[in-house]
Amino acid sequence: MEPWIFRFKAEGTVDFSQLTFDPGQNELIVGARNHLFRLSLEDLTLIQGAEWHCDEFTKGACFSRGKSELTNLTEIHDQISGMARCPYNPRHNSTALITSGGELYAATAMDFSGRDPAIYRSLGGCPPSAPRKPNFVSSYDIGPFTYFFFRENAAEHDCGRTVFSRAGRVCKNDVGGRFLLEDTWTTFMKARLNCSRPGEIPFNYNELQGTFYLPELELLYAIFTTNVNSMAASAVCAFNLSAVTQVFRGPFKFQENSRSAWLPFPNPNPDFQCGTIDYGSYVNLTERNLQDAQKFLLMHEVVQPVAPVPYFMEDSVRFTHVAVDVVQGKDQLFHIIYLATDYGTIRKVLSPLNQSMGSCLLEEIELFPPRKRQHIRSLLILHSRSELYVGVRDQVLKIPLKRCSYHKTREACVGARDPYCGWDLVLKKCTTLEESVRMSQWEQSITKCPVRNVTVDGGLGAWASWASCSHSDGSSAGACLCRTRACDKPAPQCGGRSCQGISVEVANCSR
Amino acid sequence: MEPWIFRFKAEGTVDFSQLTFDPGQNELIVGARNHLFRLSLEDLTLIQGAEWHCDEFTKGACFSRGKSELTNLTEIHDQISGMARCPYNPRHNSTALITSGGELYAATAMDFSGRDPAIYRSLGGCPPSAPRKPNFVSSYDIGPFTYFFFRENAAEHDCGRTVFSRAGRVCKNDVGGRFLLEDTWTTFMKARLNCSRPGEIPFNYNELQGTFYLPELELLYAIFTTNVNSMAASAVCAFNLSAVTQVFRGPFKFQENSRSAWLPFPNPNPDFQCGTIDYGSYVNLTERNLQDAQKFLLMHEVVQPVAPVPYFMEDSVRFTHVAVDVVQGKDQLFHIIYLATDYGTIRKVLSPLNQSMGSCLLEEIELFPPRKRQHIRSLLILHSRSELYVGVRDQVLKIPLKRCSYHKTREACVGARDPYCGWDLVLKKCTTLEESVRMSQWEQSITKCPVRNVTVDGGLGAWASWASCSHSDGSSAGACLCRTRACDKPAPQCGGRSCQGISVEVANCSR
Repeated sequence: MEPWIFRFKAEGTVDFSQLTFDPGQNELIVGARNHLFRLSLEDLTLIQGAEWHCDEFTKGACFSRGKSELTNLTEIHDQISGMARCPYNPRHNSTALITSGGELYAATAMDFSGRDPAIYRSLGGCPPSAPRKPNFVSSYDIGPFTYFFFRENAAEHDCGRTVFSRAGRVCKNDVGGRFLLEDTWTTFMKARLNCSRPGEIPFNYNELQGTFYLPELELLYAIFTTNVNSMAASAVCAFNLSAVTQVFRGPFKFQENSRSAWLPFPNPNPDFQCGTIDYGSYVNLTERNLQDAQKFLLMHEVVQPVAPVPYFMEDSVRFTHVAVDVVQGKDQLFHIIYLATDYGTIRKVLSPLNQSMGSCLLEEIELFPPRKRQHIRSLLILHSRSELYVGVRDQVLKIPLKRCSYHKTREACVGARDPYCGWDLVLKKCTTLEESVRMSQWEQSITKCPVRNVTVDGGLGAWASWASCSHSDGSSAGACLCRTRACDKPAPQCGGRSCQGISVEVANCSR
Repeated sequence: MEPWIFRFKAEGTVDFSQLTFDPGQNELIVGARNHLFRLSLEDLTLIQGAEWHCDEFTKGACFSRGKSELTNLTEIHDQISGMARCPYNPRHNSTALITSGGELYAATAMDFSGRDPAIYRSLGGCPPSAPRKPNFVSSYDIGPFTYFFFRENAAEHDCGRTVFSRAGRVCKNDVGGRFLLEDTWTTFMKARLNCSRPGEIPFNYNELQGTFYLPELELLYAIFTTNVNSMAASAVCAFNLSAVTQVFRGPFKFQENSRSAWLPFPNPNPDFQCGTIDYGSYVNLTERNLQDAQKFLLMHEVVQPVAPVPYFMEDSVRFTHVAVDVVQGKDQLFHIIYLATDYGTIRKVLSPLNQSMGSCLLEEIELFPPRKRQHIRSLLILHSRSELYVGVRDQVLKIPLKRCSYHKTREACVGARDPYCGWDLVLKKCTTLEESVRMSQWEQSITKCPVRNVTVDGGLGAWASWASCSHSDGSSAGACLCRTRACDKPAPQCGGRSCQGISVEVANCSR
């Protein structure tokens, strides 16, 4: 599609679902079905590939293997069971993390069918404490805790089946109960994450799909969608880690028995801290006893996002992955949110700068021609090189994030409202901040969203004049200027009826 | 728009929200803001009009008046307060019914602001028993009961604010408690109506918008939508009255106190019947005591529709009114559902004939040119004349339901799959059954849905071949044959991206 996109394909290899960087070697490590690859970060050329077909015995049970090191892909140092460490199917939701202490936390399906998901700690720990039918999304090693983000069937209400999104947390040094139920963590807690369109009856984006954590800001970007049985809609909400920890300090949500309502139960230990290792042995590690830990898992309060209105909302689309880049502009830092869609494009969105300005949809990056679109399997950002890596079914792609030279005029450069780019008055071209001669001679104006022209080709009349409008397609959730051109022909997007204002230009949005 | 549509307008008159027939006089009685009209059913010409401006005193309080008879619109026989009988605003939801016994049941807002809605009986009865913030939709006089259909904020769960739809019922001879709380009905019960798209997590159409009752079949057609803060979607569900009464025989849903869960409570009197008047005085009228009547209002079971999948579903549109015509076809009776949309068109839908065939969208009737659309305020069917009457903001319209002569060829006539029409082999034209010479020479084939071509004008390629598809735009909820033409240009209905298969032909659907 675009000349600036690099691609890697391998004959007969599919499911490019795992990407990780080896920055020391300037390499991208890629996991695909039965294959591991080392690729050059420069141009995605193959450095080494390894095929890992199962032996006949293993094939029968469909186990896959793990591997301890990756300096040489074909040199097997150790062989451990992948059970409870890797999913049985690349489409099962799973997340894994090696903590600074060298422990592997894997949150994945425990069985072949994918019906028994759990969080599992290995390489030095104790077995799991499983939420209800969870779909794991991500995990982070933060201070003394491992945080898990997932969605699961809601237990705490009786209005029919619903899925809720959760933040979960466990002490990294939790050894579980000592005699009774040794495989149960005593420090596990979880809380609901709220991301909803406010209103008298709020519209809930219940299902967490992806997260991106900015450790310096202790800020979590999270993407949510509606249920797969509902109409497609997606939103981006941002959560402060402090909001999560605050909820963990509050009351639990507790149901005494099945005839009781779920009620708040005072937290006996709001200042809970993970224990410390005394005298070299695991004694008094946690301050919660096992009985409490089994009764009090779920917090009463809901974790609210940074702003009451989601940072970005869009109907008729499902976001599947998110990555965030923090960009130094002329006057301030900007957060650029990259959102993978379920039809294989990537939305580039400017996060809201302040209360009065909403987010801006800057660009939609098309990875494939319209009729050859694929689901995105993985999305990874390499900040040091300002590059985005994308795994799909049959290839890996690399996209440079800074493409200023494509704006040929000063108007196009500044009008793109792209934090990566500005007009260099000396060089007389569109450059990145690094490429500019002097910052004082580098022009950038990120004060409003770019004017976008979303026009369908058809029997359209003349533009009406600009008028104020309420617009919420994501470039904004609030007041904008709009102008429209009418289309009088029946159109399927309007249920076969004629549409009004099918062609819309949106500008000057504010929230 | 269409030559067969009749219209009535009156200078300066708006809100044509109430329509009723006077079949004896062949007249349509129309209520608009500050106006009453008598119109000829024939061509909607004006027979008499009356303007009812408030006097200056009344205007201040904005009361409106009621009137006891309508033989002469300007002759005022009696003057009663409209409070609790008429809404204060034509946009407030309200329903009213005069029972066979001459009592007026009005379910409407009790105050100026519309914040205090209730069901109120007057012209011979006792005051109200109010559900929680209800929006009244319809009421019917059925046997010893008055049935109310409404939606209200759900009280029976704790998963956030939600609206549920209800069937409510009260004995027509309920006189209320005798000493304590005389204004409380002792026979009022209510139950939730379910209309949802099935699935692991069902998608609920929570909000009842309109009903149409077929008394001969004891069948209620009901239209439901999503909440106004959600994405627009609508569905039609049909309920047997027996399913409603069965739920009223079952357990109540009861919460002992705020710390208890809502639990089923056995119905002490499953064979509940309205009392009878003994010895001319109202004694032992009901078998429920007042305490029970205040505790046990809500039934535990949910009223399920006739079929687990709604009869008709459509996304991105809100249905506002429904009317049903029962049509004698060549081989059987058909139910034709007329659905008013929120943008002022009327969908004509064939109700499912059997389990294997879904509903068919037969036609969309356009009442206005595309850019002059109006919200529909009232929809009424006159079965004896096969005519549909529609009230909108500034006019009343009449639409003949049988328009067979517009199909000029045998193929078009039979291919329209319209139960009103067939091809007369003797007359060699498209006729109604009544117009046909002999039924045996009258050809009709309602075995599948008509082929519809929903095409947007644009840079479209050639048709792909027919392939099986899953289609749920309402003409079906299930397996169809589809063929598509691709559109490679960015389109707003696809969020500014290029669409695949924007032009779709759908045929041969089955459920």
